[in-house]
Amino acid sequence: MLRRVYTPGVAEVCLKIADDPELAWLYTSISHFVAIVTDGSAVLGLGDIGPLASMPVMEGKAMLMETLVGLSGMPILLNTKDPDEIVQAVSTIALTFAAIQLEDISAPRCFEVEERLQAMLDIPVMHDDQHGTAVVSAAALKVITKRAHVDMNKAVIGQIGLGAAGNAIAKMMMRLTGNPVLGIDLNDTCMERFERDGGKRSSLQEIMSECEIVIATTGTPNLIKPEMIHKGQVILALSNPTPESDTQEAMERGAVFAADGKSVNNVLGFPGIFRGAVDSRAPRITDEMLIAAVDVLVRETPSGELMPNPLDKKVHRAVARAVAETAIRQGIARAEYVPYVEE
Amino acid sequence: MLRRVYTPGVAEVCLKIADDPELAWLYTSISHFVAIVTDGSAVLGLGDIGPLASMPVMEGKAMLMETLVGLSGMPILLNTKDPDEIVQAVSTIALTFAAIQLEDISAPRCFEVEERLQAMLDIPVMHDDQHGTAVVSAAALKVITKRAHVDMNKAVIGQIGLGAAGNAIAKMMMRLTGNPVLGIDLNDTCMERFERDGGKRSSLQEIMSECEIVIATTGTPNLIKPEMIHKGQVILALSNPTPESDTQEAMERGAVFAADGKSVNNVLGFPGIFRGAVDSRAPRITDEMLIAAVDVLVRETPSGELMPNPLDKKVHRAVARAVAETAIRQGIARAEYVPYVEE
Repeated sequence: MLRRVYTPGVAEVCLKIADDPELAWLYTSISHFVAIVTDGSAVLGLGDIGPLASMPVMEGKAMLMETLVGLSGMPILLNTKDPDEIVQAVSTIALTFAAIQLEDISAPRCFEVEERLQAMLDIPVMHDDQHGTAVVSAAALKVITKRAHVDMNKAVIGQIGLGAAGNAIAKMMMRLTGNPVLGIDLNDTCMERFERDGGKRSSLQEIMSECEIVIATTGTPNLIKPEMIHKGQVILALSNPTPESDTQEAMERGAVFAADGKSVNNVLGFPGIFRGAVDSRAPRITDEMLIAAVDVLVRETPSGELMPNPLDKKVHRAVARAVAETAIRQGIARAEYVPYVEE
Repeated sequence: MLRRVYTPGVAEVCLKIADDPELAWLYTSISHFVAIVTDGSAVLGLGDIGPLASMPVMEGKAMLMETLVGLSGMPILLNTKDPDEIVQAVSTIALTFAAIQLEDISAPRCFEVEERLQAMLDIPVMHDDQHGTAVVSAAALKVITKRAHVDMNKAVIGQIGLGAAGNAIAKMMMRLTGNPVLGIDLNDTCMERFERDGGKRSSLQEIMSECEIVIATTGTPNLIKPEMIHKGQVILALSNPTPESDTQEAMERGAVFAADGKSVNNVLGFPGIFRGAVDSRAPRITDEMLIAAVDVLVRETPSGELMPNPLDKKVHRAVARAVAETAIRQGIARAEYVPYVEE
C-alpha cells in the first residue's frame, strides 16, 4: 500500500502531470474539491460573527455538497475582511480546487471579491448567498405566481434589502421579466449598484403598498408589520433564523402566498450548479446557467409544493445536467458532460 | 437531516462559538484538519515540478495521515514561490486548521517560511522535509550505530546537502551528540545557515574520507561513487526516487550499513508528531518533542530491522503519546492528552 500511494511510484504520476497539466484533472482529486470560503461577516441572519463561529455553517454546506452531488467541499476560513487580502489569499490557493464557493461574505465587499476572483481564475467562482439564493428564490416565485394566477411578467416586484442575496434576486427577476424592480437598502453603495443594474430606488412603504411581489432579505426580524401587508400580495421573507414577516400572520392578512428562508432554502441551488459547472469544466457560471437551474427547480416541484424536496438527489442531478448542457451550448465548456455516478 | 446540519439549528452552535471561540475545537472539525501546504518547488528528488504536479504527493501524505492517525490532511497548492505571498496566504487561512504541514518547499525559502509562519500562528507549523526527515533519519542512525557497535557520540558525522532535510538532520545530530557535524552544500545561504547553527564547512571529498557516518540529501543520483566509500562507514543516501549511493554497491565496498530513502521514510515521523502536537494543543513543535519521537522509533524498531513497520498504527500512537507528553512536560500543552481512538 505504501509503495502504491507513496514514493517512489508516485514520482511517475507527478512527472506526467508536470509534462501535461491537464492530467491533474484526471489523476488527482482536484476535480472533486470545492473550496467553501468565508470571512464570517454575514453568517445566516446573525451578521458578523467571525470566521471561526461560521465554521458549523461551512461544515453543513460541505456535508450537503458531498451527500447530494459527491463533491468534496473544503471549508476555508479567512482571518481578514480586507478585499485585497481575501482576493490575494484565495487566488494563491485556487489551484487546489475545481471551483470556489464564496459564503457569508457581507455586502458590498462580496460583489468586489467575487468579480475580482472570477476575473483572475479560470474555474467557477460563485458567491452562494447571491446566486444560489437568487436561483432558488426565482424558482419559488415562478411556482407561486403560476399557482396564484399572477402574471410575474406584469407584476410590480419589490426587493427590500439589496445586500448579497437581495441584489442578486433583484437582478435575476429583472432578467427573467424584463421589467425594473423597486428596491431599498440602508447602504448607499448597495443602492448605487442596484440602480446601475437597472433597479428603481424606492422605500419600504412604497414597496409594501405598490408591489404584488415582495422579497425581503434584510436580516431584520419582523421588519414587515402585519398591517403593511395587503390582500393578494406574494411575500418571500428570507432572513434566517428569523424572517422579516411571520408567514402565518401574512397569510391571515390576505397574502396569497408567504414563505420564509426555511422553505426557500438555497441548498436546492449550489450543489447542482457547482456539479454541472465542474463536470463541464466551465471557467465561470453564467446567468444562462443559473436560469437553467431555475427552470429545472420549477419543473421538478411536485404539484402543491413550493419547492422540490431538497434531499432528492434526482433534482440535484437534473440541475447539474441542465447547468452543464447550458455551458456546452454557450461554448464555454471544456469537457463533454458526463453525469457523475454515485459511488 | 437538513434541519440538523443546516439552518436554523446550526445558528445556535455558531452563536456559542462566537461567545467562546474555544468551543470551535469541540464543536467543529478544525481539531482534525491539517493543511498540507506546498509550492511544488522541491518535490521528492524531482525538484521544482510546480504545485499542480506535486498534488499526488500531497494526496499520498493526506491519505497516510488519515489512515495512520485519523487526522484529515487537506492539500493546499500555492501558485507562488514568493515567501511573503506564501506567508500571507497561509496565515490568512490558518484558522481553518489544527496544524500546518509544509511540504516540498525548496531551501533556503523553506526556513524563512516556516519560521515566519510559526512566529505568527499559535498552532504547530512543521516543514516535514526538515523535521520529519530529521526524526526518522536520527532514529535510523541510532539503530544502525548501536547494532554496528559504533559510538554515535564519538563518531565524526558528515552531511552532504544542507537543504531542508540536510540542515535539519545535521542540527538534530548535533543536538543528540553534542558534537559539530561536517557539511557541504552548493548554496551559500544554506552554508551560512549551517555554520550559524554550529556546523563545520567541509567538502564532499573530506566528508567521504573522514566521516564514520555520512548522510546525503542532495537529490543528485549516484553522487557518491563506490570508490569514495570506505570500510565501516555508515551511509544514509536519502534522495528519492534515486539515492546518491546504491546501497548494494556501498555494502560491497565495506560500508557497515547503507540505507536509502525507501527504507528511511518520513511516513514514520509526521503522522504521530502532528497527532501528538494537535492532541495536546501545543502551539508549536519543539526540539524536545521531536527527540521524543526519535526515541520512540528506536524503541519500537524490531530486532534486526532498520525501522519499525511504517503501517503499524501502534507505532504512530506511541509517537503521538510521547510527543504530547513532552509538550505537557514542557508546559506548552493547552489540553490534557487524550489518546485518539480509531472510529
